[in-house]
Amino acid sequence: MSNSKEIFITPQKQIPQLSIGLLGYAFMGKAHTNAYKKIPYIFNPAPAFPNLEMICGLPITDLAAAAQQYGFRTYSPDWHTLVEDPAIQVLDNCGPNALHAPVSIAAVNAGKNVICEKPLALNAEEAKTMWDAAKKAGVHTMTGFAYRFVPALCLARQLIQSGKLGKIYHYRAQYLQDWGLAVANTPFTWKYSKKMAGSGSVGDLGSHIIDMGRFLVGEYKSVQATTHTFLSSRTTVNNGEFGEVDVDDTFAAIAEFENGAIATLEASRFAAGRKNSQCIEINGEKGSLCFNLERINELEVYLAEENSIGTHGFQTVLVTEPQYPWIKNWWPAGHVIGWEHIFIHEIAHFLGCVVNNTPVGPDGATFYDGYRAAVVCDAILESADSRRVVDLHFEA
Amino acid sequence: MSNSKEIFITPQKQIPQLSIGLLGYAFMGKAHTNAYKKIPYIFNPAPAFPNLEMICGLPITDLAAAAQQYGFRTYSPDWHTLVEDPAIQVLDNCGPNALHAPVSIAAVNAGKNVICEKPLALNAEEAKTMWDAAKKAGVHTMTGFAYRFVPALCLARQLIQSGKLGKIYHYRAQYLQDWGLAVANTPFTWKYSKKMAGSGSVGDLGSHIIDMGRFLVGEYKSVQATTHTFLSSRTTVNNGEFGEVDVDDTFAAIAEFENGAIATLEASRFAAGRKNSQCIEINGEKGSLCFNLERINELEVYLAEENSIGTHGFQTVLVTEPQYPWIKNWWPAGHVIGWEHIFIHEIAHFLGCVVNNTPVGPDGATFYDGYRAAVVCDAILESADSRRVVDLHFEA
Amino acid sequence: MSNSKEIFITPQKQIPQLSIGLLGYAFMGKAHTNAYKKIPYIFNPAPAFPNLEMICGLPITDLAAAAQQYGFRTYSPDWHTLVEDPAIQVLDNCGPNALHAPVSIAAVNAGKNVICEKPLALNAEEAKTMWDAAKKAGVHTMTGFAYRFVPALCLARQLIQSGKLGKIYHYRAQYLQDWGLAVANTPFTWKYSKKMAGSGSVGDLGSHIIDMGRFLVGEYKSVQATTHTFLSSRTTVNNGEFGEVDVDDTFAAIAEFENGAIATLEASRFAAGRKNSQCIEINGEKGSLCFNLERINELEVYLAEENSIGTHGFQTVLVTEPQYPWIKNWWPAGHVIGWEHIFIHEIAHFLGCVVNNTPVGPDGATFYDGYRAAVVCDAILESADSRRVVDLHFEA
Amino acid sequence: MSNSKEIFITPQKQIPQLSIGLLGYAFMGKAHTNAYKKIPYIFNPAPAFPNLEMICGLPITDLAAAAQQYGFRTYSPDWHTLVEDPAIQVLDNCGPNALHAPVSIAAVNAGKNVICEKPLALNAEEAKTMWDAAKKAGVHTMTGFAYRFVPALCLARQLIQSGKLGKIYHYRAQYLQDWGLAVANTPFTWKYSKKMAGSGSVGDLGSHIIDMGRFLVGEYKSVQATTHTFLSSRTTVNNGEFGEVDVDDTFAAIAEFENGAIATLEASRFAAGRKNSQCIEINGEKGSLCFNLERINELEVYLAEENSIGTHGFQTVLVTEPQYPWIKNWWPAGHVIGWEHIFIHEIAHFLGCVVNNTPVGPDGATFYDGYRAAVVCDAILESADSRRVVDLHFEA
Repeated sequence: MSNSKEIFITPQKQIPQLSIGLLGYAFMGKAHTNAYKKIPYIFNPAPAFPNLEMICGLPITDLAAAAQQYGFRTYSPDWHTLVEDPAIQVLDNCGPNALHAPVSIAAVNAGKNVICEKPLALNAEEAKTMWDAAKKAGVHTMTGFAYRFVPALCLARQLIQSGKLGKIYHYRAQYLQDWGLAVANTPFTWKYSKKMAGSGSVGDLGSHIIDMGRFLVGEYKSVQATTHTFLSSRTTVNNGEFGEVDVDDTFAAIAEFENGAIATLEASRFAAGRKNSQCIEINGEKGSLCFNLERINELEVYLAEENSIGTHGFQTVLVTEPQYPWIKNWWPAGHVIGWEHIFIHEIAHFLGCVVNNTPVGPDGATFYDGYRAAVVCDAILESADSRRVVDLHFEA
Repeated sequence: MSNSKEIFITPQKQIPQLSIGLLGYAFMGKAHTNAYKKIPYIFNPAPAFPNLEMICGLPITDLAAAAQQYGFRTYSPDWHTLVEDPAIQVLDNCGPNALHAPVSIAAVNAGKNVICEKPLALNAEEAKTMWDAAKKAGVHTMTGFAYRFVPALCLARQLIQSGKLGKIYHYRAQYLQDWGLAVANTPFTWKYSKKMAGSGSVGDLGSHIIDMGRFLVGEYKSVQATTHTFLSSRTTVNNGEFGEVDVDDTFAAIAEFENGAIATLEASRFAAGRKNSQCIEINGEKGSLCFNLERINELEVYLAEENSIGTHGFQTVLVTEPQYPWIKNWWPAGHVIGWEHIFIHEIAHFLGCVVNNTPVGPDGATFYDGYRAAVVCDAILESADSRRVVDLHFEA
Repeated sequence: MSNSKEIFITPQKQIPQLSIGLLGYAFMGKAHTNAYKKIPYIFNPAPAFPNLEMICGLPITDLAAAAQQYGFRTYSPDWHTLVEDPAIQVLDNCGPNALHAPVSIAAVNAGKNVICEKPLALNAEEAKTMWDAAKKAGVHTMTGFAYRFVPALCLARQLIQSGKLGKIYHYRAQYLQDWGLAVANTPFTWKYSKKMAGSGSVGDLGSHIIDMGRFLVGEYKSVQATTHTFLSSRTTVNNGEFGEVDVDDTFAAIAEFENGAIATLEASRFAAGRKNSQCIEINGEKGSLCFNLERINELEVYLAEENSIGTHGFQTVLVTEPQYPWIKNWWPAGHVIGWEHIFIHEIAHFLGCVVNNTPVGPDGATFYDGYRAAVVCDAILESADSRRVVDLHFEA
Repeated sequence: MSNSKEIFITPQKQIPQLSIGLLGYAFMGKAHTNAYKKIPYIFNPAPAFPNLEMICGLPITDLAAAAQQYGFRTYSPDWHTLVEDPAIQVLDNCGPNALHAPVSIAAVNAGKNVICEKPLALNAEEAKTMWDAAKKAGVHTMTGFAYRFVPALCLARQLIQSGKLGKIYHYRAQYLQDWGLAVANTPFTWKYSKKMAGSGSVGDLGSHIIDMGRFLVGEYKSVQATTHTFLSSRTTVNNGEFGEVDVDDTFAAIAEFENGAIATLEASRFAAGRKNSQCIEINGEKGSLCFNLERINELEVYLAEENSIGTHGFQTVLVTEPQYPWIKNWWPAGHVIGWEHIFIHEIAHFLGCVVNNTPVGPDGATFYDGYRAAVVCDAILESADSRRVVDLHFEA
């Protein structure tokens, strides 16, 4: 090494700055904050430097602790403060579903770019008003369908889009969890309340796999479904009260795509042993793909044609090599990423769109994509009620 | 070792003999013949010694070759011969679906015990006549739902029946194959013809997973479904002609059980890379089970409670230890069995029932079980047509 | 179907007959008998029709029962009877290791073709005398390295021999079982006795993976090893006596092949949860292969080059399609075979060699292959004792 | 939500600060930096707030870019600057192996706490001088055996330490990669040079699995091994020159532990398809454990005793529930972590030890642990040369 013992002061990096206001400090709030923290030093160049300006939420004591823990410059218990602060350029809405529409609409009306967690709204009508407001305001929006940013699923999309699987026949998606089981002793939360959540497994889990079907396969044409609530009242409530579950614990649906493919969609909070098991399988004319979120680094690929040595079979692609989407920002091959990484990709993509004024879709989901998913969610609930196939109608 | 060089002549084993007549010498004919051959020396004691008396089928040249290859004493191109031969005690019907009813009904009317491959008939009405005839004749019948005799699935049933999983919430079954794909170049066969087969994936694959739902979970209450034919005409026909496919290539269904569990059922001949993939998952209050026919020796077991060292997770039970159903007849632990073994169990069970005059069900499927499955198959086709939920009605 | 109700008497198939004499009626005796039973109706044409002439073993009551169960025409407690019976053309030696040499040598001297289970002898010197006697007698011999007849491993050999993996760098083989553990309560048997077995895990399990290395990769040049006896006396003896274990419970070895590849070899009877886990991995210049005997129908194949859609990864080849070795005799794709099937392939191969006077190797293992494996086994024991690398010397 | 639109300024969190100096900005430098960045907002409370004071490395242009990207306050091309800067409290040595000893010794002599990447030194003698210096200086040291901080492996250690597996018989560890293959076209780097790296696969990969054996099973007693260089010169060199590989591409070793367990250890850079495959299996009297680094969130657990429903088998524990080591800092069950997370655990542990003056071991590896691993590495090289078992001697 050199003999020069000179010490150099590192200059600031000159990248665009964006001021961030975050609603919600819990699970999603933490996942999003982590993304803002990592973007500047993981991406090279980073699309923008996010300044953590303000965080909102309740109760204020927990909020204050979160603000300190996450390093937001200020905090406020009232989300209107967030909306009214002219400094904030990106409002990130990780509040409960019932707050998605009012906060997001106020924010876009105030000219802010908005990231809103999924499901976009309590129902399709509400989602439509959000999209309409965003269109009118001309801002950038994103619905938090973060699984569009799993490298293995980005790869899946590339393969399908390039025709490597041929015509698609089947899209099979299950999103299974088990925290609804009585043995899990999960307390009653807003996720069990229709007023706060809109629906249960349909909006919470189903919206993810519905959007993924659009991301990978195409537009939905019709749907039929059933829903079920296995445990209608929950005695273990945080504050000692008793909660009535008025949303679905599970749904199962069959859908048809406009291109003729068949979708089978299912979600449950009562699938013992399935912790965060989002399993997707695509069967096409020339091959198949499989994915399991609990093994987020892997994509199973089957090609009907034989390889150069005359065999075929499902191939476990470890999606950790630099040629795969998003991976070059991370580690050498075989050094796996985790669940949280997809939020880093997602938010980096959004900040880049804001800074460069480029479209969020189709790589990311806009409010319009959130609306499309909400239409399907509503149709699932309607079909479960009417016991008939529901033909889907989307507004542009 | 002894110095005595005496040679002893082995006496014949004294076990009941049953005279077997078999219709069909192809895939199923071979699998059943293999069972008759192995039962005498694998089971100890064997339930009966099956005498391979006569085999029927067409064309006669292939039939003659099969008779010689399999060691049947006689053969005849006309199945009436089989039915009219008073020596035959068990008629084994491995003919095309369209022959299931006429041959089986004639056989039970002639006082023969009958094994009939699945689906039992072209439709539920026909199946009902078969069951009625069998009841009247007082003979033993079996529908070839052979997967009831997979040791791993017998174990699954034991666990569920004994309450170890608690209340069942979900039954998820997919039976996927890929020989329907254009790239597979499978010639047109009777399986593509409604007249000969009744239905496509519904009866061929669906009936298996429908019956398995009854074997493991309970009786069905209602069903909704879609069906699809992806490739409606097949140019590669054996004899140069052109075949119109008028049955379903795939179906997807959602059913409800009387006990409140939800079933999702799906079958396809267009799932690239899935050769014989019958995947079953059961989620209950206290645990879950998973099975994949391509790994026939394994059952995945999840228990919500922790084990003695404080962990839980899906456990791969290698169902090859002697305490598990049927295994003590075979090999030491870890020495796996194959697909053909389940027919050996199935037919041994049936021969034992005939000899000992014991009931075939619930371990085996009778013609009544074949009828129950047919009702669900018909309802799937009806729902796909009416686009509504179909409530099921079974006759006793 | 035809209207002709004519009944035809099936003529006997005209295939060469071979008279079989079997020593041993237990585990291996049953597996071999099963092969003799199935060959005539599974293979078309069958290489020969094996007549089950005589079975030998002790005690005579169990032997008589086995003779009746398996359908041998005669039985005798003294193996000399077997050797001296001029009618017997193939002597199948499934006796304890200590009987391998005396019985097999007497048999080849009597002009019989001999199948002998592995390990071929108590040590390499004894194995050499067997091979020498066989050479002199000019008969066909086979050592029971049955895993050469696993379709997945035959495929592995094809791929390697055709250069598809390039130069081989690594052969990694583990044969793990757990019946030696105290919790397994396995009684003392001859397998724990050096006098009867020669060695423990080395000859019993190690000889298999040693031979597989020769089958797949090449000839061994040197070896270093350790052995260990974890439980030196076993209190649970069948007859109430106490057994001293004077063989190895486990060994680990590192070997070099003449072609420069490195082998790591390990076997144990103390690997909890590993029932019959023979795991093999080959790493070559252009790809890798993996196999696990507990999933006998699968071969994992990795190719360093990318496939047509630009991905790579380990591919699970379900070796059940008709183009793969031995499979066309069995069932349609995806209908898996079991462990017992490899003995059917193995013995069919041997009977064909006898009838057609074709060489048993390299597809099957001869007594010479048994000797080569024995040399490596002896060297493992010697290295464990001397704590040095042992260079291998083979006689032609 | 509240009507109060008050905005609160977030106060700084009062936690101890530690000034960090980092040598190396490449792969490990990035992984360590990521840990320093995340510790303050992921841990609650964080053990310390790391101030990124200075980064060293060459060439200076790349170093300057890294300093800016990672946010170090200053940078300097000469590591002496780092050692001589009195402000720096923790020196983190991610330099090439040849710099481990000189920089670390200078740093501990200067009273700094030191994290040094593995292998600790070019050989055991050098490692010993590092440990001696650290002991004398009374500072905290850590060797970068980061896999001690994989939650699944922490769990493995808990299970073994608590006796749940009983006496351990086998430790089987393979660390396989494939970037050494000719097809990988990896340019010549310092890792291929004995002068810069000390050894090849032995120190780079072997030291990890050697240390893991000590972490999980116990102290080594003796070792025998072979090493091999498959590709001795590499034509694709960064600067157009030609590199001679004078280190091992692979090694295989057999070791004995003082407690009687047997270790088989193997590493290779020539295992096609194995990207970062560190596979570990432990077999004990009462059960077994398996781990694969490419599935970092999973631990396979086998218990010889049956569970409450009478089955046993390898159980896939998804180590993402809050009761498992380190997990409570992260996400809900089923939301998996990645490879980088273990560095965050490791460095958080070290910072906590520095701040609270608590011992780094046995949870973390000290310089003494680095020395113990180096003794085994040296013995592997010695045995490969002498072709004999090497008995190990460690100094206290």
